[in-house]
Order: sequence, then structure tokens, then C-alpha cells
Amino acid sequence: MTSLQALSADILKEVITPRPVQSYKGTFGRCVLIGGNNQFGGAIIMATMAAVYAGTGLVTAATDPINITALRTRLPEAMVIDYQDFNQLATLLSSADSIVVGPGLGETETSLKILKFVFNQVHANQCLIIDGSAITLVANHHLTLPKAQIIFTPHEMEWQRLSGIAIADQTEVNNQAAQAKLGAMVMVKKHHTKIYTNQDVYQLTIGTPAQATGGMGDTLAGIVGAFTAQFRTDYQKSALAAVYAHSAIAEELAANQYVVLPTQISAQLPQFMHQISQPDERPIGFI
Amino acid sequence: MTSLQALSADILKEVITPRPVQSYKGTFGRCVLIGGNNQFGGAIIMATMAAVYAGTGLVTAATDPINITALRTRLPEAMVIDYQDFNQLATLLSSADSIVVGPGLGETETSLKILKFVFNQVHANQCLIIDGSAITLVANHHLTLPKAQIIFTPHEMEWQRLSGIAIADQTEVNNQAAQAKLGAMVMVKKHHTKIYTNQDVYQLTIGTPAQATGGMGDTLAGIVGAFTAQFRTDYQKSALAAVYAHSAIAEELAANQYVVLPTQISAQLPQFMHQISQPDERPIGFI
Amino acid sequence: MTSLQALSADILKEVITPRPVQSYKGTFGRCVLIGGNNQFGGAIIMATMAAVYAGTGLVTAATDPINITALRTRLPEAMVIDYQDFNQLATLLSSADSIVVGPGLGETETSLKILKFVFNQVHANQCLIIDGSAITLVANHHLTLPKAQIIFTPHEMEWQRLSGIAIADQTEVNNQAAQAKLGAMVMVKKHHTKIYTNQDVYQLTIGTPAQATGGMGDTLAGIVGAFTAQFRTDYQKSALAAVYAHSAIAEELAANQYVVLPTQISAQLPQFMHQISQPDERPIGFI
Amino acid sequence: MTSLQALSADILKEVITPRPVQSYKGTFGRCVLIGGNNQFGGAIIMATMAAVYAGTGLVTAATDPINITALRTRLPEAMVIDYQDFNQLATLLSSADSIVVGPGLGETETSLKILKFVFNQVHANQCLIIDGSAITLVANHHLTLPKAQIIFTPHEMEWQRLSGIAIADQTEVNNQAAQAKLGAMVMVKKHHTKIYTNQDVYQLTIGTPAQATGGMGDTLAGIVGAFTAQFRTDYQKSALAAVYAHSAIAEELAANQYVVLPTQISAQLPQFMHQISQPDERPIGFI
Repeated sequence: MTSLQALSADILKEVITPRPVQSYKGTFGRCVLIGGNNQFGGAIIMATMAAVYAGTGLVTAATDPINITALRTRLPEAMVIDYQDFNQLATLLSSADSIVVGPGLGETETSLKILKFVFNQVHANQCLIIDGSAITLVANHHLTLPKAQIIFTPHEMEWQRLSGIAIADQTEVNNQAAQAKLGAMVMVKKHHTKIYTNQDVYQLTIGTPAQATGGMGDTLAGIVGAFTAQFRTDYQKSALAAVYAHSAIAEELAANQYVVLPTQISAQLPQFMHQISQPDERPIGFI
Repeated sequence: MTSLQALSADILKEVITPRPVQSYKGTFGRCVLIGGNNQFGGAIIMATMAAVYAGTGLVTAATDPINITALRTRLPEAMVIDYQDFNQLATLLSSADSIVVGPGLGETETSLKILKFVFNQVHANQCLIIDGSAITLVANHHLTLPKAQIIFTPHEMEWQRLSGIAIADQTEVNNQAAQAKLGAMVMVKKHHTKIYTNQDVYQLTIGTPAQATGGMGDTLAGIVGAFTAQFRTDYQKSALAAVYAHSAIAEELAANQYVVLPTQISAQLPQFMHQISQPDERPIGFI
Repeated sequence: MTSLQALSADILKEVITPRPVQSYKGTFGRCVLIGGNNQFGGAIIMATMAAVYAGTGLVTAATDPINITALRTRLPEAMVIDYQDFNQLATLLSSADSIVVGPGLGETETSLKILKFVFNQVHANQCLIIDGSAITLVANHHLTLPKAQIIFTPHEMEWQRLSGIAIADQTEVNNQAAQAKLGAMVMVKKHHTKIYTNQDVYQLTIGTPAQATGGMGDTLAGIVGAFTAQFRTDYQKSALAAVYAHSAIAEELAANQYVVLPTQISAQLPQFMHQISQPDERPIGFI
Repeated sequence: MTSLQALSADILKEVITPRPVQSYKGTFGRCVLIGGNNQFGGAIIMATMAAVYAGTGLVTAATDPINITALRTRLPEAMVIDYQDFNQLATLLSSADSIVVGPGLGETETSLKILKFVFNQVHANQCLIIDGSAITLVANHHLTLPKAQIIFTPHEMEWQRLSGIAIADQTEVNNQAAQAKLGAMVMVKKHHTKIYTNQDVYQLTIGTPAQATGGMGDTLAGIVGAFTAQFRTDYQKSALAAVYAHSAIAEELAANQYVVLPTQISAQLPQFMHQISQPDERPIGFI
């Protein structure tokens, strides 16, 4: 059993390296995000915004058509398709580096049908982030996971549904056993989020209560999608860097704000990632 | 009969305290806002924006479907439902900490049907803010108020309709009598707004004519909704802090603006609330 | 025959005075703007934005329903109705202080029907700004003007259509004769716009080629609507201040911009008007 | 065979000159942009934004109706028509100075029909920028080019399709031969883009990997459309200045950003062009 490690800012510089000069947009990955029903359309907008501002080469959202205009108005950089157009979705998925499924997806039969289709299309070398309602669907319908680089991003209640472990019993030992059985990376989101990789357990020691507002999880899922699409050497390290960056930016903004909105975190990503990628060393904790 | 008290900046620090470190989005309350018809859709957008930027944990707007795209474009952080989908509305209302009904609701039969449904669903421990057209509907249709922590936010003409007291006769004595009969907190909005609580009468001594523009009331209703959802110890104090914060931010912006737009006040809320929540004492009047 | 006067910055301080402390949104006027068809919907958005940011108490746009979502997304502060809903339009018009008709209205039969309805509803004490396609409709269909405080805002080609004076013949003498016959204030927009009031001829001596871009006229019409609704002592002076303010802000922005977008001018209005309204005298030309 | 020339910052000052004081919006050209289907609607928004912010006098987008609201919300300055309304499109095209066809146009039968219509309407003295999917359509359907000032903006794969030269064989000699056969200016977009004019070959020596993200090409096409509409003396020089300006702004932004979003480049155009147009010489490389 591995002991708990505090996740440090070192993970940022390890993952967010200077961009190669000889490159084109394909170099920085393709991310497809699937979600956003009638009620929860904002979730897919926030996840997609995070994916765009975190520097993914090409981003496409697959969503309910009701969300197309809002998404396109805020994010002309992203392409959009109807998430029930399975021909287009299959084409998109085949060339994706990472796939985020779940933000605002809902838990209806349509949601389930879409999730199953995604599971059916995913390849082993793609990173699949299962977030929000998709986690609940997996739990409630006992879905078999596809072969892929899978990352779950549950909050404690979703983790209870998925693992069967009641919140009070979510100890490291129990969670590690459940993680091993799942065979997937798991981020249990809470105050001082814990991340269970295939090898280790990490704890996030940064973060702020100013982050505790609707949409934060969707934004995190989008950053994880962007980092795993863009920094492909080690998807688990990329995901660790994503969760660290998300809270580091939130802390920075919380120096002047009582609440930090998810879209404000995304807006800071280009500057934040630039600072990290600079070769001149700065003392850890500069953020 | 209580004598009039000037509302002071002290109310801000009393209510807007530092956030508990151990928290999640549920800690900061759920606010549901109901309104926005075809003509007045901007009202529900402005009220919802205020609720999001004032730090509510989870915000949902229930509105006419014509407003969904505009609301979602500006505020992906908020969830949205059709205000005539009473199944969804009932589910939402059951878990709300505060409910704001009225911004841009209109005065049609549909508006009345929705308002009655809301009154029927509200619980005694929820805070219910009755604003704008909902006040006129209550007055015109002699609706019985539900058992809840009720706050009315009328301007003088709406207060005349609700209380039956002509504007010229809206003295403290008459208003207090009407307030006592209603059994609800009442903010009579005007130059130097007066607030009638169940115990006391307060007068707002700050504010600026730059605030006198369409949408200010909707924004105030949203802040009241956010504060009563988030700071639950005493809903009357939370509402007093909301009305003070609204005008304090307006005054600050009016130092450089001939007119202050309602959305600009909301945009300042995270910074303003941060300053208030800081432990280092600053002289009163720093704003 | 009056001789030409250069319009000076003095008009700003004469019109844009500090707001009365005892006031409410009605104090600052009601402006209704009518226009925006399928192709030219941006025009009504820009005019409405100008009216809101220039401090009008209450602003409503009447437009083609296709423009509702875009308008509401950018300007939740404005109310919106379908410009073919003549019941609602009549109600709105009856309480308006100023009416702007024409931005993006088009020249179809529908446009004409709407314009005629507006002419039929206008009262003698309202200010009516006739802009863009509405000018061409008046000219082409020989419409009789209603009794009102009328301001035309044609560019030279529109003025040719309205007055019958070819651009090459648009001398002060000819234009004054045409203005007298119309019995309306006329702003002939061009490099160094000339304004023909019922008494005098003014020339704008400020302005910048950075202003020469689509939408500038719509924005000017919105500012004229806002100033005549808000500063009601003398509608001709208010209109002169509006045209001066529009170009003064453009000049200021052009110090750093090759092109000045119309929406950028509107965004500056609250700050610009604040500076003007301040009692401490600054040297003329500070802008 | 001409030897390769490095494109220098001098091209900016040669093209972006101070605006004539006596001018009106027609002075600065008319640009029509055609593209944006259901999936790729963001492309036409980004191209149109570039055309507006680069100072074109009048800008119209012809697109799928699904994109109208998003485009109008972001860009009220632009007019919009349905790209399948061939009557309106013909009217628009007849008075255009430059035409950009392709951003997000797609490769369906509808796309092809629209492209053929555009080719049929173009005049010899108009500048026609063929971008994105329009390049692929020309290649796949062996379309005959109209007589016009044509500029192709392919990336290497699109250039392979159009010229028949495999990416590995895209040498200067081969490309120049293909360019001569086409009789059109060609920008082959890649790290250090090469531009083949009718006389010379230029290489862009600036640029940053932060630019490698979806939508960059659409934005470049919009700037080329704006510059060729606005600076009409020599369309090839105007296009060279456009490609230089695009990467110069990207470099400037990349000093603080890990990724530069296309819309951020457009937002900087008014300031950037102002600096260039100033008479006071600054050392080359100040950007």
C-alpha cells in the first residue's frame, strides 16, 4: 500500500514545458467534450472554455442543439456538433487525443445512450475523462469500462455511488482498493482533493473556499481534457498538473475575490501556463 | 413604535465573514430565481448574475424558454429551466435556501399561475424574496402569503399597491403598521430606501442618482437572494447587508461614472465582498 | 440667414449637468428605439447600447424577433418587444420621452408599416429621431411628418433623397431652406457634420477618420435618443451635445486606435459624461 | 526563378498609412465573408471579427442562419445574411472590394453550390481570398478560377490537395511552378509561412508556437480581407502586410501567454495598426 504524497508545484514545470517551435495545431492535441443538456448547458460551455484556454490544438463540443448558440457566442474557437448525431460523433472521436464525457450530460435515457456510444468508440490509446452525471450513469447502470486511459473525477457523493463506499468510510485504504478494482485514475474532489493513480495516492494541499461554487468541476474536467490531449507523455502526470493548476489559479484570484468564478479560472490559463513554462527558475510558491 | 436607525457599514462585516476552509458548494447555499418573460427577460439575467457573483453555491434560473440562450451565454455558471415545467420547478424549490420571484415575471395569467405555484411549494425555513411584478400580482389578486421568511422589495408605487397607502402617506408609522400586518420584511426602494424588519426600521443613507436606471431593482433582488442563501444565521441581517452592499458598490463606481449599470455592480461583488471579509480593520467609510 | 457657428465643447457642460440627488429612474427619461431587421439587426443593438450607456432611465428596443436573443445577451438592461406587436408598441410609445426610429429598419413594406404606425402614435411633446432607412422611407414615400420635436440624422446621400438637393449642391443656403421647409432639426453627417436647427447652423469641428466605420450612425442616433429623453429642457441643445460627445469620445479613443468601433464609444459614455458633469473646471480641450 | 526574401516589418508601414481626414466609411472598403456551417460556425465569426477590428468600412457575413445570433451578439458592427439567399448575396458581392470565402464553409453540396455562385459573381477588380474548405472544394471539384485578384491561404495539406504536390515535395521551385500555373497569390501556412506572389517568394520569419490553435487561419483570412478592401493600391502588398501583422501581434501576446487565442489577436488590431501608422519612427522590432 503506497503512502500519501502531497502534490507539489513541481508537477507544473514537469508537465507544462515550452512549446516546440516547429509545430502546428495538431501538435497540441484534439479534445472532444460531450455533455450539456437543456438544464445544464452551462457545464459544457465551462468545460469547453477550459479546454480552449488551456491551449488544446483543436476543441469540439458535442452537446444538445439548444446550447450551440451560447457556446459559439462565448467560444468561436470551438467547433460544435449535436451529441445525438452519432455519425459525426464517431468521426470526431476517432481522431481525438482526449475525450471528456459528463459535464451537464444529465441522467436520462438519452444521456445513457450517448455515454454507451462513447464507451463503444473509445480506443485504448485515448484518454477518457468521466465526469459529473457520467459517473452516476456508470454507477447506476453498472457499465463496463472501455479499454482506455480512464480518469474519473467524482466528488465524494459520486464516488460513493461509483465505489459503493459511504463517504464516512472513504479512507485511503478503502479508496485504493476500489481504485485498483476499477483500474482507472480517480480524483476524489473535496477540500484537499485526493488523487488515486495506478501507482500512488496524492493529496492536493492548496485550494480555497472561494472555489466552492457551481461549475468548478466542469472547468477542472476541461483542463484535464486539455492537458492530457496536449501533454501526452504520461496522462496521469498531465492530470495531476491539471488539478494543481486549477487550484493554484483559484488561490491567486482569491487573493482579491470572495468567490472565484469558474470562467475566471479559465481566462487566466494562458498567462498562468506561460509563467510556468518560463525557464528562469522562480521560488516555489510564487503563485 | 421603534425609532428610525441609519443603516451603517457595520452590517457588512457582521454578515460577510471569511468563508470556512472546510466547505463545498452546498455550504454556500442554493438560490432559485423565477422570472423573465418575453419582454422583460433582461431582468432575470441581471438578478441571476447578481446571485452568481455574490457567491451563492448553486444558482438556478426558472424563466421563459426565450431567455435560455441569452442567460446561458452570459452566465454559464447558472442552471436554467423552463418556469412552466412545474415538475422540475418543484424539485428545485424543495432544496432551495432562498427563492427570488418576480424580476421580469410580468402580470399575465401565466405569471400568476407560476407565482401561486411557488407560494404553494415554499417551506417555512426558506427565504422568499418577492420582487417586481410579483408584488403587483400579490396586491392585485389578494394572494395569501405562504409561511416563510418573506422579504418584499417594492418601489414606492408597488408599495402603494401592496399596502394600500398612497405614496404621500407612506410615513414610518403607516408603513410599520402595514409591515406588521403583512408579517414580512419590507424594503421600500427610493432615494434613501427604508427597510422595515419585524423589529426595527432602518434607513439607507448612502446611494447615488447614478443608480437610477432600469435593472437596479432586479440586481438588488439577486443580491438579497444570494446573501440570504449563503449567510443563513439571520435572514433579515443578510438582507440589510445586501441592500447596503448594493449601494456601496454603486457609490464607488459613481466616483467615475455618470450612470452605473446594474451589471457593473454585480461584476464588482467578488472584490467588494473580499475587502469586507478581510480581518485587518479599515476605517469605516473606506469604500 | 444665420451664419455658421462652430459647435464648441461648451455645449457639453451646458447639457450634461450633475444628476439631482432626489431622483428615480423615471427622472432620467424613457427612450424607445425601433429598428433592426434580419440583415441589419446589429444596428438596433448598437443604438440601444448607446441609449443605455448614456444614462437613460428606461430603454426599450422594438425589433424583429430574430434580434431578441442577441440584444438581450449584450444588454440585459434594455427591454425588448417585437416591432410588429402594435399593441405593445402603442403602450410603449405613449410613455416615451424620445423615440429613435430607423437603425437597421430596412425599406420593405413591413418597415414602412411600422414607420407609419410610429408617426401616427407620436405626441407633440416627444422627441422623434428619424435615422437611417427611416429617412429613405420618408423621402421615397413622401410621408407627412407628425407634430413632434423631430430630428433627422441623414448622411449626405440620405439628405439628398430627403431634401432633393444633390450632394454637390448641399450648400448652407440650400440646406437651410430645406430645413425650414421640413420644420425639423437636421444633422447632415459627414466630415465636419453640419447641424441645422430651427434657428442656427452649427458645424462640428472635431472628429476623426477612425470613426468612419459601419454602425457609427446607429450609435449616434442612440446617444441623441438618450440625451433628448434625459435632458429635456431644450431638445435641440441636447442633440447638439450628443453629436459633440460622440465625436469627442471617438477622438479620445483614436489617440490609441486606428479604427474606433461604435460599441467602444458607447462603453466610454458613463466615464465621459462623469468628467463633463464635474463642477471643477478643466481647460477646454482636455478631452 | 526568384530567390527567397525574408518578409520584414517594413511592409507594415508601407501599407498601414494614416487615414485620410476627408473620408467616410466607404473610403475604407467593403468586405464580404462567406462561410460558417452548423459545425464550423465559429470560423466565420472569427474571420468577421478580424475584418471589423482591422478597420474595414463595411463588413457583411453570409452564413448559415444558425450562426446569425452568435455573430450578431459578438459583432453588432457586422451585417449578416443567409448564405443561401442568392439574391441578397449577389447584391452584396457586386459592391464588395474584397471577398473572403471558405472559413467554416464545409465541403457539402451546399458548400459547393455557394462557392460556385461566388465564383460566378466575382469581378476582375475585386480581391477574392479562398480559404479553408473552399480550397479543398476547388481542388476536389477542379473548379475554374474566376478572373479576379485571387489569394489562396492553404496550410500544407490543403496546398497538397490544390497543387498536387506532396508535402515532402513542397520546395520553392515546385511551389513557384504551381503558383504560376494557378495565376494566384498563395500563402502556404506553416512554421515560417511562405508566400508566393506573381513576382516573388517571401518567407515570414516571425511567429510563435502559441499561435498553433484552431481558428488562427480564419482570423488571418479576415485580416487579409480587411487589408485588401481597405488598402487598395496593391492587393499583394496588402496581403503581405496582413500576414505579417497577424504574427507580429501573436508574438507580442505570446510574451505573456502560453497560447494566443485568435479572437485576442483581432482585439489588438486597432491598437497595433495605430502604432504602425504613426509618423514618428520607432526602431524596427519594437513590437
